[in-house]
Amino acid sequence: MNHLKDYNRISPAVIKRLPRYKRYLSDLRKKGIERVSSGKLGELMGCTASQIRQDLNNFGGFGQQGYGYNVAALSEEIDGILGLAKNYKLVIIGVGNLGRAVHNYVSAYNKEYTIGAIFDVNPDIIGTNVGTHTILDVSQLPAHLSENKVDIGIITTTLDGAQEIANLLVNGGVGGIWNFAPLDLEVPEEIAITSVHISDSLQELTFYINNGNNL
Amino acid sequence: MNHLKDYNRISPAVIKRLPRYKRYLSDLRKKGIERVSSGKLGELMGCTASQIRQDLNNFGGFGQQGYGYNVAALSEEIDGILGLAKNYKLVIIGVGNLGRAVHNYVSAYNKEYTIGAIFDVNPDIIGTNVGTHTILDVSQLPAHLSENKVDIGIITTTLDGAQEIANLLVNGGVGGIWNFAPLDLEVPEEIAITSVHISDSLQELTFYINNGNNL
Repeated sequence: MNHLKDYNRISPAVIKRLPRYKRYLSDLRKKGIERVSSGKLGELMGCTASQIRQDLNNFGGFGQQGYGYNVAALSEEIDGILGLAKNYKLVIIGVGNLGRAVHNYVSAYNKEYTIGAIFDVNPDIIGTNVGTHTILDVSQLPAHLSENKVDIGIITTTLDGAQEIANLLVNGGVGGIWNFAPLDLEVPEEIAITSVHISDSLQELTFYINNGNNL
Repeated sequence: MNHLKDYNRISPAVIKRLPRYKRYLSDLRKKGIERVSSGKLGELMGCTASQIRQDLNNFGGFGQQGYGYNVAALSEEIDGILGLAKNYKLVIIGVGNLGRAVHNYVSAYNKEYTIGAIFDVNPDIIGTNVGTHTILDVSQLPAHLSENKVDIGIITTTLDGAQEIANLLVNGGVGGIWNFAPLDLEVPEEIAITSVHISDSLQELTFYINNGNNL
């Protein structure tokens, strides 16, 4: 699908919600539901019909008055917007428990994401296998990046060394970094980055336990 | 520290940023830096001085004109706001790679969080140890919750069964749920919940790779 629209002016908050829309639409599809109103979708997702319409209007309204949204069409449109119609090559650096969990997650995708190689610094696990991948020494990362097109580098190392790994990924020409290390990495402006800060999320929860819920 | 303020009217976006402030202030403390201006803090965190002041004013301005913020005092104040001056008892349900990674994360806290018990459904791992904890059968969860005060239930299971586990946690009287399963759980309003939706974050990154960066 070719998108001529400029999505850059859409707020990050809306972009962040798109994968959530995708999850709910997938559920509806699995249940054989072919169309859904903004009211019903809002009810499922815990927001108002008008919020749903406002979000989706950002991408050109896909709904039809009196009909609602075609579930399959909207789902595919969101896949197109997110860029999931293509295939992305990934590398994982850091093959501890978290790296293995991420490896499992990503391996569950059929076509959108493919793991090219996985790396670690620990000599005890280098050369062993995770699924169909053999863990490589992280010193081989620059060579791997220069010989292969890699779209996304996944950092599942501890804090120490994470910035250095990010620099190697940037110099190796990746398009984006998916960061799980508990720091904000410094990367050039043209590199996309999202971080999963696990501890931040636990502390946020702790606030709500003490100060009332966040629903 | 006793907080008489009502923090409920503070926007979720500000709450979400507090752990990030905490990380930057910890870094400054480790470097022996005793005070920081809103300008310098903004520079480090990639935002404006006025955004920093606006965020922190929500909790009563801790800064002093011409002096800036006392790093230690601000850091402790944020700990107090987040509720990190207390100790929380946790249980983990789902001891796969992700559950083990979360177990490691939480175990690194000295006093704020303590893991009380860990559970799984897989007979092959029930009875084996993770750190100092023995994996219990998930059928023992209700009894554990009735015999122990548990503040936070951590769900690191797959999608299937996650809602059922959430129901057990709610019935067992937990204050909050930290959810890693890829769905939005339904819980009563008084239960705090934060979710780490790993796949959502990867899809968000994919959008930015295709449509320019998010900085």
